[in-house]
Amino acid sequence: MKLASYCYHGISGYGLVEDDGIFDLTSRLGADYPDLKSVLTAGEAILGTLREMAERGGPRLAKESVTFLPVIENPGKIVCVGLNYEAHRLETRHDKTQYPTLFLRTATSQTGHDTAIIRPYGSEQLDFEGEIALVIGRGGRRISPENALEHVAGYACYNDASVRDWQFHTQQWTPGKNFDATGSFGPWLVTRGEIADDAVMTLVTRLNGQEVQRTTTKYLIRGFADLIAYISAFTTLEPGDVIVTGTPGGIGSRRTPPLFMQPGDVVEVEVDRIGVLRNIIQAEETQ
Amino acid sequence: MKLASYCYHGISGYGLVEDDGIFDLTSRLGADYPDLKSVLTAGEAILGTLREMAERGGPRLAKESVTFLPVIENPGKIVCVGLNYEAHRLETRHDKTQYPTLFLRTATSQTGHDTAIIRPYGSEQLDFEGEIALVIGRGGRRISPENALEHVAGYACYNDASVRDWQFHTQQWTPGKNFDATGSFGPWLVTRGEIADDAVMTLVTRLNGQEVQRTTTKYLIRGFADLIAYISAFTTLEPGDVIVTGTPGGIGSRRTPPLFMQPGDVVEVEVDRIGVLRNIIQAEETQ
Repeated sequence: MKLASYCYHGISGYGLVEDDGIFDLTSRLGADYPDLKSVLTAGEAILGTLREMAERGGPRLAKESVTFLPVIENPGKIVCVGLNYEAHRLETRHDKTQYPTLFLRTATSQTGHDTAIIRPYGSEQLDFEGEIALVIGRGGRRISPENALEHVAGYACYNDASVRDWQFHTQQWTPGKNFDATGSFGPWLVTRGEIADDAVMTLVTRLNGQEVQRTTTKYLIRGFADLIAYISAFTTLEPGDVIVTGTPGGIGSRRTPPLFMQPGDVVEVEVDRIGVLRNIIQAEETQ
Repeated sequence: MKLASYCYHGISGYGLVEDDGIFDLTSRLGADYPDLKSVLTAGEAILGTLREMAERGGPRLAKESVTFLPVIENPGKIVCVGLNYEAHRLETRHDKTQYPTLFLRTATSQTGHDTAIIRPYGSEQLDFEGEIALVIGRGGRRISPENALEHVAGYACYNDASVRDWQFHTQQWTPGKNFDATGSFGPWLVTRGEIADDAVMTLVTRLNGQEVQRTTTKYLIRGFADLIAYISAFTTLEPGDVIVTGTPGGIGSRRTPPLFMQPGDVVEVEVDRIGVLRNIIQAEETQ
């Protein structure tokens, strides 16, 4: 199943994405389920109910009629992994580390599929980072790697777009990773049942149609299960939490000359079996 | 006014803290105001309504009868400032930076006044960091320093307790700053009107009654207004967001010999005009 969050006629909601349109689930489950996070919190059984509802038929929304939101609008936490592909570690000249490099994003830094990623005024260093995101379904603490994937509700594409000059204001990357409307998350989550746990997923980033990053999950330094185990060793994971698993080599700031995203550019992150997350770059309006 | 969040007979709520007890506000404002964040979101006018309700009288809860929660249980973001007092910058041997050092905490890393801060198993390096927290009342982006304090709903004490070995697993401090139940936030927020904008606040940390940190806000490298301006340059601040403004010199890990917090220890963060935030250290139960 593909589950998306979106805004339709000014009302935010969520639904099941199919080839011929979106089966809207907003309000079908009642007031206790205002958003996708609340559905994931309810547990896996409810996903079967959703599928049955959709199979009974009913009208579909045209995909063009909705404005996509971040797959999870309001995650309790968004844990991002840095330097998790060898080619990216090498291009950024970081030493090997025994543990994964982690930073956090805030919910306000996110945006959805087919919306604008905003290049803030005062910076010309907006860079792309195509990634695969895990959405947590079942929460937990001190999860063992062996059981870790059972805690995943599904997978999505993520563009961890970064404002490089602000990222390096100090040693801590927080500002450059948290500009409003830079972290694009979508277009939807594909539930875990659709992708075998041992599947090798291919991740490609394109800028104006030109391929700029390509890798597969075979090249992850720390795999998904190990990341969940490490992260849950210090923090309780909750339904709707997001783990953004790292970008491969090819980022714009390490090219000669550098290749930063410009207003009007179109950036795409494609992961096979998930889909294509597409955004246009827009300059922030000056006040 | 002092506003606190707490759990009373298994129900979480909030109220106005007075000398003789707590005037419970939970449910008095209706279902649209389930928590303190929703009250702050409603704007400043509602604070006058709260005060009037309390002045009309009515029963008070004994402070001993509630379990304090983090002042804001579910902040949209918790932005922490590192190295913001010169003595602490020097003791940790960091270079001066042009910009403030920022990292994020998650809501799951927090705990409240008079509860346990948990020392995780696998680490003996739990350190104290007494700080002053700002709670955002009015949201905004690109807030100018001149207007910044108008966006503050109030002030609270914060213990940014840190697991030092995990903090330095990599260059990014995220894991050591985000263990469950380490960020103590309380005991309440004192609304901005109670503390003059130019007041010099004194911050003291005590471990088992011994003073281990002391400073005043005169020694902040970046003052509250400058922090709000810098942070809101990249992220939209929202009501209930928290800015934790930095710890002074004296942390345990930089002493000879190091002074880490042990199970059974009592740690207090006192800020004049706010109060005393007290926690006991408890070892995590092994599984």
